[in-house]
Amino acid sequence: MPKLTRIRFLIAVLAFTCSITAMAQETYRLKLAETWGPNSPILGETTRNMAAMAEKMSAGRLQIRIDSSNKHKAPFGIFEMVKAGQYDMGHTASYYYKGLIPNAMYFTTVPFGMIAPEQYAWFYYGDGMALMEKVYRPHGLLSFPGGNTGNQMGGWFREQINSLEDLQGLKMRTPGFAGEVMAELGVAVTNIPPGELYTALERGTIDALEWVGPALDFQMGFHQIAEYYYSGWQEPGAEVQFLINEKTWAKLPEDLQEILRVSMRTAAYDMYAQSTHLSGEAWARMKQDYPEVSHETFPPEVIDALRTATRKLLAEAAEEDPLAKEIISSQAAYLEQVRQWTNISDRAYLNTVSPETGD
Amino acid sequence: MPKLTRIRFLIAVLAFTCSITAMAQETYRLKLAETWGPNSPILGETTRNMAAMAEKMSAGRLQIRIDSSNKHKAPFGIFEMVKAGQYDMGHTASYYYKGLIPNAMYFTTVPFGMIAPEQYAWFYYGDGMALMEKVYRPHGLLSFPGGNTGNQMGGWFREQINSLEDLQGLKMRTPGFAGEVMAELGVAVTNIPPGELYTALERGTIDALEWVGPALDFQMGFHQIAEYYYSGWQEPGAEVQFLINEKTWAKLPEDLQEILRVSMRTAAYDMYAQSTHLSGEAWARMKQDYPEVSHETFPPEVIDALRTATRKLLAEAAEEDPLAKEIISSQAAYLEQVRQWTNISDRAYLNTVSPETGD
Repeated sequence: MPKLTRIRFLIAVLAFTCSITAMAQETYRLKLAETWGPNSPILGETTRNMAAMAEKMSAGRLQIRIDSSNKHKAPFGIFEMVKAGQYDMGHTASYYYKGLIPNAMYFTTVPFGMIAPEQYAWFYYGDGMALMEKVYRPHGLLSFPGGNTGNQMGGWFREQINSLEDLQGLKMRTPGFAGEVMAELGVAVTNIPPGELYTALERGTIDALEWVGPALDFQMGFHQIAEYYYSGWQEPGAEVQFLINEKTWAKLPEDLQEILRVSMRTAAYDMYAQSTHLSGEAWARMKQDYPEVSHETFPPEVIDALRTATRKLLAEAAEEDPLAKEIISSQAAYLEQVRQWTNISDRAYLNTVSPETGD
Repeated sequence: MPKLTRIRFLIAVLAFTCSITAMAQETYRLKLAETWGPNSPILGETTRNMAAMAEKMSAGRLQIRIDSSNKHKAPFGIFEMVKAGQYDMGHTASYYYKGLIPNAMYFTTVPFGMIAPEQYAWFYYGDGMALMEKVYRPHGLLSFPGGNTGNQMGGWFREQINSLEDLQGLKMRTPGFAGEVMAELGVAVTNIPPGELYTALERGTIDALEWVGPALDFQMGFHQIAEYYYSGWQEPGAEVQFLINEKTWAKLPEDLQEILRVSMRTAAYDMYAQSTHLSGEAWARMKQDYPEVSHETFPPEVIDALRTATRKLLAEAAEEDPLAKEIISSQAAYLEQVRQWTNISDRAYLNTVSPETGD
């Protein structure tokens, strides 16, 4: 080769190598829509934790912009927006979409179901992830656990519940599947927008309501106007959800897919730890500021009736749809086995080390 | 510039750009020593899970070679080897090193202390990480949570324990701090190498032993020769540990530091989920294969005496060293608050939904 040609060849090789490297260094900008409002504690911190990890681990190659509900105006339309490709990702709760896809319900939490550590075991080492894929793949979506609130409380009541009789005609805000179960027991179930809940409870428009747990209930102020705080049965380990459009997923290089998967997984686990932390703090503060607030558990006859109604509704759902049956059966079988372990470990420990008190 | 000079300048610019990119693409090879033997279930899977995430997220730029104890021959020398820079990283348990640094003990688990979700909350949202840094920084080491076994069982006993009297002179294998507590109650505490434990229990050289929980006890076969499996008090949430030499840490670029931090964090959480899963499976199988195996809890007078002895030993440790006092006080205060939340959530739920059975 003559000298100038050789030089041109060298330039071409260098330019090619650099462009390959540049491709690997391409920046991917994803948009995520979350159900939550701006600056939402715990839930909104989870999406930001995830995005920060992804950006830092990718040296800026993976950037995730988060839109809260004030921006996209569709807090319960995340599933549809991500499916349509309007957003690449979402952070929401699977059971919000049971109207559209009934089988989505089981991947958040189920009454009388698993607590958080049991449910993570089912998701990652049992059949949970595979079953969730069966539900979401047909919609062109991938779904991942998105953070656990911990065991949710049964709600704030202005009067004690001592019998099934006390539930007849009781006006209570409790949405979703738990509301259906409560209705079976004669409760007058209503739904009221979050912003009006405090006033509704204060004025007696409702007699009781169920929200989340101390960490998120605290800022709502219910402990200032209702004395009885009941332990839950309806959402023993509510896991929210990350959704990704599978076309977005497919266009990411393998390293960024793994960065995204691991960022979501860690942010989800972190949310459970943060919920535990803040629930401890908030419950201590509620009791200190309002000593008349009292922890209660539902009497056995109420629990038994709630369980019977839950089983009836689940059996009906299982009969209507083979995939529902597969999911419900998997969860029931897994729970039966893992709960035996929980009972001889954490439950036995908690009961033996402080037998004198249940609260 | 004349043409040839311009071309040479262009080549220089391209070559410089490519070499910068190549630097950012440099491969870092770290060596990790683990306490565990080769193919160790759960524990050994945790280091491999971590290394695989790190490699995949970094597109091969971060490679971690894992040496098991058959290779480095120093299962309980991980701390020293990583401190000396002989290895970049380690996977071990902090409390193994209490002989060298007494304050290392508190970062694994403490008798009558926190269960796993409470302890993760303390590490990541309470003072846990900052206190662990105070203990490890002076040794040029960073320490991170490395995976939780879940609540460990109190051990396998050939006879039931119905009173404090039954513990007098009982020959039991139970190492570490729990052994010291047991000794206060009159137990003849011995340590026996793992490989000889089965025979020692079978032949009556010892009357009882404590190992981990169903998932790891199963392969040891203790359920074939001892009938009574007691719930624990001594290691309510044993968290193993990743160690890193801070010089290794400092030479990693920021993105690889974050990839390493997040890989360790996720692998640790995953280990807790896997332990939960495998414990459920193993306990079900033990009961099926050996129906005479019976779950037991220590009577209140034994629990009370164990707690009193634990408090006495912790108080002595706190008096001897200001940092020990700071750690013990932080854990005690955190536990007091977070346990109130655990009691009204998971504990109340577990007790109300299945009141009929403790196992």
